[in-house]
Amino acid sequence: MSVLTFGEIMLRLKTRDHERFMQSPFFEATYGGGEANVAVSLSNFSMDASFLTVLPSNTLGDECVAELRRFGVNTDKIQRGDGRLGIYYLEAGANQRPSKVIYDREGSSMARAKVGDIDWDNAFNGVDWFHITGITPAISKSAMELSLESVRKAKEKNITVSCDLNFRKNLWKYGLQAKDVMTRIVQYTDVVIANEEDCQKALGIDSDMTIHGGELDTDKYQKLSGAVLAAFPEIKKIAITLRESRSADINGWSACINNRKDFYVSAHYDIHDIVDRVGGGDSFAGALIYGLRTFDSDTKALEFAVAASCLKHSISGDFSRISVAEVEALMTGDSSGRVQR
Amino acid sequence: MSVLTFGEIMLRLKTRDHERFMQSPFFEATYGGGEANVAVSLSNFSMDASFLTVLPSNTLGDECVAELRRFGVNTDKIQRGDGRLGIYYLEAGANQRPSKVIYDREGSSMARAKVGDIDWDNAFNGVDWFHITGITPAISKSAMELSLESVRKAKEKNITVSCDLNFRKNLWKYGLQAKDVMTRIVQYTDVVIANEEDCQKALGIDSDMTIHGGELDTDKYQKLSGAVLAAFPEIKKIAITLRESRSADINGWSACINNRKDFYVSAHYDIHDIVDRVGGGDSFAGALIYGLRTFDSDTKALEFAVAASCLKHSISGDFSRISVAEVEALMTGDSSGRVQR
Amino acid sequence: MSVLTFGEIMLRLKTRDHERFMQSPFFEATYGGGEANVAVSLSNFSMDASFLTVLPSNTLGDECVAELRRFGVNTDKIQRGDGRLGIYYLEAGANQRPSKVIYDREGSSMARAKVGDIDWDNAFNGVDWFHITGITPAISKSAMELSLESVRKAKEKNITVSCDLNFRKNLWKYGLQAKDVMTRIVQYTDVVIANEEDCQKALGIDSDMTIHGGELDTDKYQKLSGAVLAAFPEIKKIAITLRESRSADINGWSACINNRKDFYVSAHYDIHDIVDRVGGGDSFAGALIYGLRTFDSDTKALEFAVAASCLKHSISGDFSRISVAEVEALMTGDSSGRVQR
Amino acid sequence: MSVLTFGEIMLRLKTRDHERFMQSPFFEATYGGGEANVAVSLSNFSMDASFLTVLPSNTLGDECVAELRRFGVNTDKIQRGDGRLGIYYLEAGANQRPSKVIYDREGSSMARAKVGDIDWDNAFNGVDWFHITGITPAISKSAMELSLESVRKAKEKNITVSCDLNFRKNLWKYGLQAKDVMTRIVQYTDVVIANEEDCQKALGIDSDMTIHGGELDTDKYQKLSGAVLAAFPEIKKIAITLRESRSADINGWSACINNRKDFYVSAHYDIHDIVDRVGGGDSFAGALIYGLRTFDSDTKALEFAVAASCLKHSISGDFSRISVAEVEALMTGDSSGRVQR
Amino acid sequence: MSVLTFGEIMLRLKTRDHERFMQSPFFEATYGGGEANVAVSLSNFSMDASFLTVLPSNTLGDECVAELRRFGVNTDKIQRGDGRLGIYYLEAGANQRPSKVIYDREGSSMARAKVGDIDWDNAFNGVDWFHITGITPAISKSAMELSLESVRKAKEKNITVSCDLNFRKNLWKYGLQAKDVMTRIVQYTDVVIANEEDCQKALGIDSDMTIHGGELDTDKYQKLSGAVLAAFPEIKKIAITLRESRSADINGWSACINNRKDFYVSAHYDIHDIVDRVGGGDSFAGALIYGLRTFDSDTKALEFAVAASCLKHSISGDFSRISVAEVEALMTGDSSGRVQR
Amino acid sequence: MSVLTFGEIMLRLKTRDHERFMQSPFFEATYGGGEANVAVSLSNFSMDASFLTVLPSNTLGDECVAELRRFGVNTDKIQRGDGRLGIYYLEAGANQRPSKVIYDREGSSMARAKVGDIDWDNAFNGVDWFHITGITPAISKSAMELSLESVRKAKEKNITVSCDLNFRKNLWKYGLQAKDVMTRIVQYTDVVIANEEDCQKALGIDSDMTIHGGELDTDKYQKLSGAVLAAFPEIKKIAITLRESRSADINGWSACINNRKDFYVSAHYDIHDIVDRVGGGDSFAGALIYGLRTFDSDTKALEFAVAASCLKHSISGDFSRISVAEVEALMTGDSSGRVQR
Repeated sequence: MSVLTFGEIMLRLKTRDHERFMQSPFFEATYGGGEANVAVSLSNFSMDASFLTVLPSNTLGDECVAELRRFGVNTDKIQRGDGRLGIYYLEAGANQRPSKVIYDREGSSMARAKVGDIDWDNAFNGVDWFHITGITPAISKSAMELSLESVRKAKEKNITVSCDLNFRKNLWKYGLQAKDVMTRIVQYTDVVIANEEDCQKALGIDSDMTIHGGELDTDKYQKLSGAVLAAFPEIKKIAITLRESRSADINGWSACINNRKDFYVSAHYDIHDIVDRVGGGDSFAGALIYGLRTFDSDTKALEFAVAASCLKHSISGDFSRISVAEVEALMTGDSSGRVQR
Repeated sequence: MSVLTFGEIMLRLKTRDHERFMQSPFFEATYGGGEANVAVSLSNFSMDASFLTVLPSNTLGDECVAELRRFGVNTDKIQRGDGRLGIYYLEAGANQRPSKVIYDREGSSMARAKVGDIDWDNAFNGVDWFHITGITPAISKSAMELSLESVRKAKEKNITVSCDLNFRKNLWKYGLQAKDVMTRIVQYTDVVIANEEDCQKALGIDSDMTIHGGELDTDKYQKLSGAVLAAFPEIKKIAITLRESRSADINGWSACINNRKDFYVSAHYDIHDIVDRVGGGDSFAGALIYGLRTFDSDTKALEFAVAASCLKHSISGDFSRISVAEVEALMTGDSSGRVQR
Repeated sequence: MSVLTFGEIMLRLKTRDHERFMQSPFFEATYGGGEANVAVSLSNFSMDASFLTVLPSNTLGDECVAELRRFGVNTDKIQRGDGRLGIYYLEAGANQRPSKVIYDREGSSMARAKVGDIDWDNAFNGVDWFHITGITPAISKSAMELSLESVRKAKEKNITVSCDLNFRKNLWKYGLQAKDVMTRIVQYTDVVIANEEDCQKALGIDSDMTIHGGELDTDKYQKLSGAVLAAFPEIKKIAITLRESRSADINGWSACINNRKDFYVSAHYDIHDIVDRVGGGDSFAGALIYGLRTFDSDTKALEFAVAASCLKHSISGDFSRISVAEVEALMTGDSSGRVQR
Repeated sequence: MSVLTFGEIMLRLKTRDHERFMQSPFFEATYGGGEANVAVSLSNFSMDASFLTVLPSNTLGDECVAELRRFGVNTDKIQRGDGRLGIYYLEAGANQRPSKVIYDREGSSMARAKVGDIDWDNAFNGVDWFHITGITPAISKSAMELSLESVRKAKEKNITVSCDLNFRKNLWKYGLQAKDVMTRIVQYTDVVIANEEDCQKALGIDSDMTIHGGELDTDKYQKLSGAVLAAFPEIKKIAITLRESRSADINGWSACINNRKDFYVSAHYDIHDIVDRVGGGDSFAGALIYGLRTFDSDTKALEFAVAASCLKHSISGDFSRISVAEVEALMTGDSSGRVQR
Repeated sequence: MSVLTFGEIMLRLKTRDHERFMQSPFFEATYGGGEANVAVSLSNFSMDASFLTVLPSNTLGDECVAELRRFGVNTDKIQRGDGRLGIYYLEAGANQRPSKVIYDREGSSMARAKVGDIDWDNAFNGVDWFHITGITPAISKSAMELSLESVRKAKEKNITVSCDLNFRKNLWKYGLQAKDVMTRIVQYTDVVIANEEDCQKALGIDSDMTIHGGELDTDKYQKLSGAVLAAFPEIKKIAITLRESRSADINGWSACINNRKDFYVSAHYDIHDIVDRVGGGDSFAGALIYGLRTFDSDTKALEFAVAASCLKHSISGDFSRISVAEVEALMTGDSSGRVQR
Repeated sequence: MSVLTFGEIMLRLKTRDHERFMQSPFFEATYGGGEANVAVSLSNFSMDASFLTVLPSNTLGDECVAELRRFGVNTDKIQRGDGRLGIYYLEAGANQRPSKVIYDREGSSMARAKVGDIDWDNAFNGVDWFHITGITPAISKSAMELSLESVRKAKEKNITVSCDLNFRKNLWKYGLQAKDVMTRIVQYTDVVIANEEDCQKALGIDSDMTIHGGELDTDKYQKLSGAVLAAFPEIKKIAITLRESRSADINGWSACINNRKDFYVSAHYDIHDIVDRVGGGDSFAGALIYGLRTFDSDTKALEFAVAASCLKHSISGDFSRISVAEVEALMTGDSSGRVQR
């Protein structure tokens, strides 16, 4: 049995080093997208993972399939359709200057896909875990409808569903708000992954409502996760990532999980020289799914996910390139960065 | 008084050297497009040139304006609108393997522009020559209507109109055929620029109808140009480029002109190690406009245009980067490529 | 049923552009090797292909598997063993300066593999065509013994065997001569692929013995192929490639086939600006196998193979990146290299 | 009305990444120079800015003009003259290893320019603010005389004059000391920009004279700025930048202003991963001029200048590439470096 | 009189920036190895230094000699032999992800060299200081025997011997343990250079045996160095480096020396943005040898060595590229990283 | 006994690939100059060679010395002086577009060197062959005087003198014409190297005076060389290179020699894909000196020189990187460019 992730994969065009857009006439060109990133993470951990998307029938689509296959992701379920390959442009920030993303996803094959285009019986064949994010329903009305259909079908088949809320303010342009849709999607979701802003913007759960002066941040997150679980009884567990953005290069990184029985806060990592933080959240989601499927302890799954995503910040590109052994080395305390030879 | 060119400018994403798409994770990123290329050529020749287009209101649009300004092109008339920046992907061929272009222009700001979006009185202010190509009417129905409007308005203002027919078989997807539209546009055109295929596909003039075995190629082109002039009495002059594609690296290059009085065939150039032939035709158009406006002889204008575009084949990128002095050195016979020091 | 190829895959370290070794502190790093190149060609043509080799158990071995998987090659049969990843260093020549290869294959996992290390029943499962070359028996005594075992086992299972003789004078250092071994291997081979030097050095068949002044080159190759077939009755067909090396950049390219009934010489291609000729012969072998399995005509298979390998000369890297459609376009006469847009 | 800046612009040849000179055979080649950097900053903020210099009549001079034009700087006043293009070589330091600059400016067109070469009536046409630095008078005797002429002429025309003292110990080789000249230039200057070393070396005002143990640094800078204003009654305002160089990568950054009425110290920024600090002071000067011309508050102008120049440390190259909106986002507190998407 | 260092020099293949192995198809290719790095450091300090090794007789060996000669290292004693050029692959870590080295040294010319291959009389001609490390005896049995021969011969000739213990856990594969060999080598050694792990793994001196809770780290190192000197009476001085690995980018760096009379701890440096720490220890060894030969004070030699190796962390590549003047500037307190212009 | 060459070595700044100046923000940075190129060629052929020049006392000068040392050139005689490092900018042409050189040599340390600065007794110690070119006397009046002094002193010491006339029209700016000076220098020269233009511009010998219609080109060159020998009785031999520039990429290449007894024309080479022709003439000069000193036949020396310089056209950079074995392989007929493996 394997994990299926579903969403859009894009061409990622990043400027060289820390250059601003078009500062020199070059882009680094790779592929990436939240759900594909999760599939790649799982595959890197040697877990069976398939990715479902709709790609254009041209060489750029073919090469995207090939790149996923390189990582061992099962690409047999990928469909081809009308439209273009979505793109996101990325300019890497530094210090007080933030990284910038320009989305160019309109008219993509995935954005044009609609209910009826995907044969879910085939898609879910051999699948016992399905992962989706809040990005796909944000890109177009038809993709939103397809997203709702996907989780409904998954539930009918008793497949575990995880959803990374992933609120993106520059998408959601077709008329509906994130909250309108995501509150429906989580009704079919077993495991929710989110950050504080996602809870507010995608689910309407405000983190500040019950927080008073003297309380610890930990309390705040326990209350926030509890509020989500209270509002959406179908959710079994919620994991929340805690990113402290001190600058484009320096972040604190940790997470917590609430499984309705226990609330647990992970180890905390200081990351001082971030190589690439895009995809960091996805590497958390991928590693959490791996952990929840592998370990008998939610807390161990959480620690695995935080360590894996901490390491992702040292990797350029959307895709994490970290092994289980490397994550476990960090989990067990080796964060010294000593040369291994 | 100055020249105005009108059309779409795109981000050009070219693979490194002769690599196939995504063979390594890099693209060379520049800007280009037939009509912008003409404006740049004119500006390189120190002739006043403006470029009119519609660009998105984001950094990629801003940088496009900056890049045109770098060449001295007047960008004051450029408008901003909804939509995305058009893209074309380019893979450089070699030998028997042809170069490949993937257009990604759907939904671009230029493709979305429509009649009424452009204030032609302002656009044509100070302009006495207007240049358009067969590409703009091919990208969308609204761009086609805008193209027709543009030449009608230009004629009303007694502005000389030139049109490079530039047939592109992978565009023209909105329902009309090139012939349906281009036969209307040339009715407002003083100077037509074309190759043999353009005459056939865009104007319906077949070059083979009257050609017999023993005739020279020259005769064939004289008859072809005569047939166009006969079919479209509004056209004053037609210049036809003659590219002999022996391989992706080796081309013969020459052109002819028919001004209803005389027919003239230019010098012929052998180009053995083509650096970049994309934009070669545009550099011909730009140099021809320069020549027709500068010299008192159509034949000298033609020779200037052929020499300029021969040199363009040694320049990477859509934009020609050739000066009048360099063109004149080649026209007067220095094709030895000796080091200048 | 699918094709299995067996041999060594190496890290290929090539200098930048035309630089000499260590002229600047960079290498292009890809993977390649005759038999892997054949598997990649077949996979590019959408034919099921597996590659069998022995790789070291480290990240460089893992990435090699991933890269093959990227092309769709089945890597399930690849084994891991002691030893290192073989390397070949490549310096690209130009004009009268030849390209240079430095082999660094001693002690590689493949060179250390020995009879008994490979379970041929598993390796040949689902396989109906097996491809080997004269390189593997040249790298070490144990690899030679394994090569002999492989073809013997293949014949026992009624698998079609093809062998590219591929004589390499800088290998064969363990005591035996190419002729000692290859004359034994071809006794188990249905389809031999060779050039003139291979016939002489690997099989001891001298091409000049019966050639007289007035004869055509074609006659010479007919006689050479006939002599091989006469000497080795087990061989069903032999294809010989004809490379005219005029310089490092300019080659003539054609081939012939002798299937004991007919002798056929292919179309001839002039290649003027070679991007990379390493792997050219392998792309011929791969395309010939594809053609012999796909078409009902040996001559069509030959033309397909020559056109495919002509196109390979425009691709950097050992691996061909050419589709069936591209080969067929060249076979049917389009060698103009015109931009496709 | 617009701002005119006057000085030398050079070719900037920087090693790759953190490499030492000639560690690999490459230089990043851009243009830069204190006064040009100020003009580019102003142009990025959409303020009319012209740059006046003398460049050689060759392609390198032409491309320099084009590059300035790319940023929207008015280049109409740039003159051509004898001599060469000045160069500065830059090696980027790291940690305890400082960046190194090798000046190669002798014999440059700007260094050779002399009184009488520039028609100041034309140069100052439409100008209401003139900016100069202490670098130009340091490069040659004739450039020093021209600098003095420039500020005298500007004052005659009631143009506001700003001067960044910019002491460079490796220049000033023609016989005079910085103090000899700069004390005369500031007599024509309304706004002085300096750091502590500049005050001492260029104006002879020693910052330590009146500082006692218990005083705050702030007091020290208030006294220093007060001493300058006391010594040079023509100066209306002085802004002093406070760089705490902890290493080549980590700096503290703030500034203060004394306008004879108030003394104000800006916000303080910690910059941990400096991409390029060359041009940081110029981006402060440019933003201060923008601020003083735009806002009705010297303190807001100062905060704008400090925030803008903080952001410049994240940009490679002499030229700042920061918009007003980005500066204002930082001024209003967003220094988190969160990805903007 | 000059210094001779003896050991293996390898091709160093490093991934671009912080990329993982084969993330993009490029390697930075330089040369390096502990003993060669020491010779280069000495040569950079203008001290006569020769390097002795065995290289293969091919272009890669020739270029290695040329590269050493570039730095002024005397290469006349380098011998050629059978075998290949050793390689080490390097992947640069970041933050919590450590750098990784893959050694590919088996079968190298140095590993194959054996007692009798080197004429020590010639090798030691003009030499009064000999430097070796614990790496050479780790690569093969014959190299171990050669290492023992080298120090015996050196002692016979009254040459001062220094040895950097340099324990590498992934070498030592031929049967003996580091401790078996290194305890014999240090019996011929005057100056030992080590870190804490080296003392334990190579000499069997455990640093924790006598350390109690309240003691200072300094005490611990004094005891450790004292224990080594007690165990090996032939050693005259031991220097121990103290690296605090906080992450792959951030290290603390200092050292101590025990010359049987005094124990001295150096200044401490915080290094926040490590460019390349490989070769850091070698630059310490080289600078210590320089210092001990140049200054009349062991403490000054130690401070010189620590400052030099601190600066090495800002240089990419194995070879330090630091001058005496630069080291002395840091020793005398200038660690501000201010631009030098 | 060894060869001494004397002249200026410059930083060579070349655009990437075939780019025009500043088309992208990069230069390839190497060193080169006619006389240094000759010394490097000789050193590559394992002949003792020293280079004499004057360099600035900065890092760029130091690295220049190191780079020469890398090739084994003896740099002990190089002096340091005031002034800057000379530069030449190079833009690589293609096809009909010629390569362009911009000299930036004014004020260089070599241009500033004057009679008295060089101790010729030391310079000529151990030297039996001295090589100079027509470039050094062209860069400044003092360098011209130094050039004359050098050849006079060499003759006094019975050192063989060779001179490559190397006329450069963009130098010679200090008042004298090439002819004024070079006719004096050749009076001290044993071996003159030239092309047709050099004979005319530097020596005033016009090649067309006695050439009639039906004569062969060979006759023309025999007459030209004879005319030079007749006019300058001190010259013992003259070698003339014959470059047929068909385009920037395609040249014919051969040479002839006249030693007052015989006139001999070399083999002729077609070079189709020139990688870099700058330095081609210098590689001829270096190889000719090598040949005249090594072989007992002037014709063999000439053939060696032509083959060596033919191969240089495949090498990027001023410096040839060709071995004796490679030259001899080409001389004996292997121009096929076949891969060597």
